[in-house]
Amino acid sequence: MMKQYSSLQQRETFTIRTYEIDHHKRATIPALVRLMQEAAMQNVINLKISVWDLEPQHLTWVLMRKAMRFGRLPALGDRITILTYPAGFERLFTYRDYRVFDDSGRQIAASSSTWLLMDTRSRRMSRIPTTIQALNDQMPAPDECLPHPANKIPRPDAPEQQKHFEVNFFDLDFNKHLNNTFYLKWMLEVLPAEVLEQRQLQTLDIQYRNECHWQDRVVAESQRVNANTFLHRLQLEQGGKELALARSTWD
Amino acid sequence: MMKQYSSLQQRETFTIRTYEIDHHKRATIPALVRLMQEAAMQNVINLKISVWDLEPQHLTWVLMRKAMRFGRLPALGDRITILTYPAGFERLFTYRDYRVFDDSGRQIAASSSTWLLMDTRSRRMSRIPTTIQALNDQMPAPDECLPHPANKIPRPDAPEQQKHFEVNFFDLDFNKHLNNTFYLKWMLEVLPAEVLEQRQLQTLDIQYRNECHWQDRVVAESQRVNANTFLHRLQLEQGGKELALARSTWD
Repeated sequence: MMKQYSSLQQRETFTIRTYEIDHHKRATIPALVRLMQEAAMQNVINLKISVWDLEPQHLTWVLMRKAMRFGRLPALGDRITILTYPAGFERLFTYRDYRVFDDSGRQIAASSSTWLLMDTRSRRMSRIPTTIQALNDQMPAPDECLPHPANKIPRPDAPEQQKHFEVNFFDLDFNKHLNNTFYLKWMLEVLPAEVLEQRQLQTLDIQYRNECHWQDRVVAESQRVNANTFLHRLQLEQGGKELALARSTWD
Repeated sequence: MMKQYSSLQQRETFTIRTYEIDHHKRATIPALVRLMQEAAMQNVINLKISVWDLEPQHLTWVLMRKAMRFGRLPALGDRITILTYPAGFERLFTYRDYRVFDDSGRQIAASSSTWLLMDTRSRRMSRIPTTIQALNDQMPAPDECLPHPANKIPRPDAPEQQKHFEVNFFDLDFNKHLNNTFYLKWMLEVLPAEVLEQRQLQTLDIQYRNECHWQDRVVAESQRVNANTFLHRLQLEQGGKELALARSTWD
């Protein structure tokens, strides 16, 4: 049975489409993460705290961290249910959890995430407005929420793989930034072919550090730190501004 | 009212998701075409003539031509209905139509398409099996189907814009080929910024000529032929094999 985590939670059901699968007919990681993000967007739209609702206050949500773990990936035609809910505040940070269930109610993927609000005029972190803080009462107890990693992700100090990408027009989101699922996609694309083709992603922990924009050129790097673990970095080609760091582990 | 075109038709309803929109909150062209393709995939799955059903006969569907026209693009949260149905045979070719309706039943986009069956062993065009030809009786009369362009699309003879792409792992479809919506995306990406940002696509006619695979490097080119019309070409960087030609017209 699927538990009720919070009266604020969003519950979205998706059927895995043909454009979301690989040649094993299983959902790809970028496709599954995109659906998790979609459920969260529908949640903030319903709670009236979406980027569009916050525009008049010159505020926008910025994703800082996303720590995911994956079990068996759903197949073409499988129905999945995604539960997502705000999962607490801590100073300027807000948390959000995502839980993905298969049709029998078994949890097959989960993710914690950390967000902050940015003032779009000063480009600085903003305090959480009291109207949003008021939601706190309806959030799950901390021990019902997923753990939020606090440690920094190390940089690859001797990258072994490198790949170049350009931010294209149709890669932009509704905010004219590179859609955050492309960060993830590009950091995975740089892995050795053998990993992409034969292994299954177990965990992926991403620290988002900067936005990027149309026509930016980006370098993705990765480094194997042990048999099952890689470090990843995404940075701008020109100037080297760091866009994201990640750590992935593989079965 | 939405007409019934054929007893073979598929009727799929989609709600436009946040990852399908641009900063005007309108569905992007690649997102809308992907939904049309999804409806067609569900249609061939239901008719038991999908690529997976045809595998034991060593046959696979190959898309040859897709001629699309677009009206007002649907917005975030809009519900659209896509009707798609097999639309006739002609020698080795089979046709398929797509019609997109808004929630009031008004047609807002349409596409004809031309397909053939390839023998996966000989890599040659195959005759249409009699089991598939038998569907002919249930197809709409030819004058109810969308027109199928027969003329060739001219090549850009003096390309003005050029852009390079690489086929990445997560760009592959369930068949390990570059997903055909990437052909379209890449041929549009090469257009001048002013066109992408300020104009609305009216028609897009694509001739698909060759498959491409993981790690292939691809060049997209375009050339303006008059105020509202562009020619496009996609080819392999190495050897120059032509992957697709297209003509686009803009409002």
